Amino acid sequence: MKKIAQETSVLRRSFLKKAGAGIAAGAGLAAGMSFAAPAVHAQPTLRWRLASSFPKSLDALIGPAEAFAKMVSAMSGGKFTITVHPAGELVPAFGVLDAVQNATIECCQTAPYYFFGKDDTFALATAIPFGLNSRQMTAWLFEGNGLKLLREFMRNYNIIDFPMGNTGAQMGGWYRKEIKSLADLKGLKMRTAGIAGKVQERLGVQTVSMPGGEVYTSLEKGTIDAVEWVGPYDDLKLGFYKVAPNYYYPGWWEGCANCELYVNIKAYEALPAEYKAMIEAASARAHVLMQAIYDAKNPIALKTLVAGGAKLHRFPKDVMDAAFKEAMALYSELSAKNPRWKKVYEDYSKFRADENMWFRFAEAGFDEFMHAQRL
Amino acid sequence: MKKIAQETSVLRRSFLKKAGAGIAAGAGLAAGMSFAAPAVHAQPTLRWRLASSFPKSLDALIGPAEAFAKMVSAMSGGKFTITVHPAGELVPAFGVLDAVQNATIECCQTAPYYFFGKDDTFALATAIPFGLNSRQMTAWLFEGNGLKLLREFMRNYNIIDFPMGNTGAQMGGWYRKEIKSLADLKGLKMRTAGIAGKVQERLGVQTVSMPGGEVYTSLEKGTIDAVEWVGPYDDLKLGFYKVAPNYYYPGWWEGCANCELYVNIKAYEALPAEYKAMIEAASARAHVLMQAIYDAKNPIALKTLVAGGAKLHRFPKDVMDAAFKEAMALYSELSAKNPRWKKVYEDYSKFRADENMWFRFAEAGFDEFMHAQRL
Repeated sequence: MKKIAQETSVLRRSFLKKAGAGIAAGAGLAAGMSFAAPAVHAQPTLRWRLASSFPKSLDALIGPAEAFAKMVSAMSGGKFTITVHPAGELVPAFGVLDAVQNATIECCQTAPYYFFGKDDTFALATAIPFGLNSRQMTAWLFEGNGLKLLREFMRNYNIIDFPMGNTGAQMGGWYRKEIKSLADLKGLKMRTAGIAGKVQERLGVQTVSMPGGEVYTSLEKGTIDAVEWVGPYDDLKLGFYKVAPNYYYPGWWEGCANCELYVNIKAYEALPAEYKAMIEAASARAHVLMQAIYDAKNPIALKTLVAGGAKLHRFPKDVMDAAFKEAMALYSELSAKNPRWKKVYEDYSKFRADENMWFRFAEAGFDEFMHAQRL
Repeated sequence: MKKIAQETSVLRRSFLKKAGAGIAAGAGLAAGMSFAAPAVHAQPTLRWRLASSFPKSLDALIGPAEAFAKMVSAMSGGKFTITVHPAGELVPAFGVLDAVQNATIECCQTAPYYFFGKDDTFALATAIPFGLNSRQMTAWLFEGNGLKLLREFMRNYNIIDFPMGNTGAQMGGWYRKEIKSLADLKGLKMRTAGIAGKVQERLGVQTVSMPGGEVYTSLEKGTIDAVEWVGPYDDLKLGFYKVAPNYYYPGWWEGCANCELYVNIKAYEALPAEYKAMIEAASARAHVLMQAIYDAKNPIALKTLVAGGAKLHRFPKDVMDAAFKEAMALYSELSAKNPRWKKVYEDYSKFRADENMWFRFAEAGFDEFMHAQRL
């Protein structure tokens, strides 16, 4: 891996030299022309590697990273190419942060909350239980203080981050048996992770960590009772509905899941201004794309799941209320012991209060009416 | 105006020639180098004009167009500049479509439904009563058949369109008196427009068209009884709450309002591939931006409006039900007489049914719970 980085670095220096020559030649060409043209200057040829935390099979997640890379290449006339590598190809799924931090690779695509073990603050860049929904998250990032605060935090990891996709509100997962009240969660063995797992444990759930490939068999055998994944489109591929048909909503721990592009700060700062702007615009294009993919594909997948035997249930109110209470208690505890969390969460939670005050009127009023119609 | 276009065209030819010279020189420079570099080639210097349908004062609407232009300039190293002109500066607000169609200017930013008088199909690119919400619209455009169908339609006007912003669900406007039931709409004089106006007329509303500058005084005097505008952030600036304090929601005629960038198809096709990609990425960045601006600013503005005396009301159910029924009847009539509308609306309405089937579970389940909390 280090070797790859060195080669890239050597190439980069070569091309920067060449770019210098290009500028001189361009200036000569322009001389004597009657219009006020900028000098012909060539941009450096760069090849970056992007490691994804997602496998090739989760196309709605990794697809936008591929679209991002393709867009940068198209805008730069093929000079700035970024090769996209699925989880495990260059580095393991959860090794991408270290690899970018250490400049082993230039960038990665990930869901920041995977790194909550390093610092819970990472979760605020993706989702926390009872957090912002997709539009609210995007608004906080781009027009609130979100991206500013997260970038300040990410500097500790030599990284600058760009929002690059969201799944929207997720489902609450697949359960072998119905959950009729909070009591049914006590002792339930569930594959789950992150801050969501911390809240679920406070409700009596026994959280289990296991490789994705073992989940189906474990559910079938009853070694575990439940699993949370994403939503209809991704869930359908994994077939959990065949062995744990009770499909709960809403996924209160993921009102959205923001994904990000992480770029090594030194690699980023060495870029010409044009390429920096391309990263910003192309990642925004990919940001739009991921949410659009999920929103377009989930309905079709949900129909297939229901036709295949999935039973849709809303979480009982006592489960939601208890989870909300425990989540808020956890956030207070985190704020008391982690100043980085506290700084970002204070802004996040204030924004969340304002957003929910407003969204209940025009947005929810419109949506509720539409949901009740026969369309 | 024609003169401007001619000058631009002359400049464009000059720069294309120059770009050709640049390619030759670049190829020479690259010869003999050991790495597989693309030739140094210069992109043409272009200056485009973008006319907006929005005035400078509506910064949440015109701001994203300015951000789009700035982003294209940054990505092209200042070679592809697009100057943004508020409504009336180059062409009148509603003259932008003709100006792009006739190549008087290269592009414009507008809300396509302004042009429903030319063809009702334009409305499907922005909003129709009881249509898609913001996320659903973006999904239809980017991952459904939306953009494909709209581009086919727009070819009739020599235009290619790019989604570039959305306001989200709008409010239902300002009323001097409370609307307690459908009966209160009979004879109501309201400033409104577009397909929304057609539906309102079927409910007995007397729709009035008047310049924006006269609305406040007309409301104050009682010459009109109501006005619909956008949502809290824009509405606050206009001060309607002082003279017509009853603020209704949801704006059933605008579950979202998609804005677009219209580019003259010949001007677009003459662009190098790099610049085409820049337009796509930068317009997507601006698309994210507009919705984020509204979502971030509306809550603050709503608080100010309520503190200033605005009274929030939900439209009575009989108003909503009657409006829905009339809207669906209108769409059937349009489908019967306009094949262009029929083709796009058939796809749009199928997508809408699927979206609302799905959004009621995870999304609405999450949002409803959050709206009920004290945050």
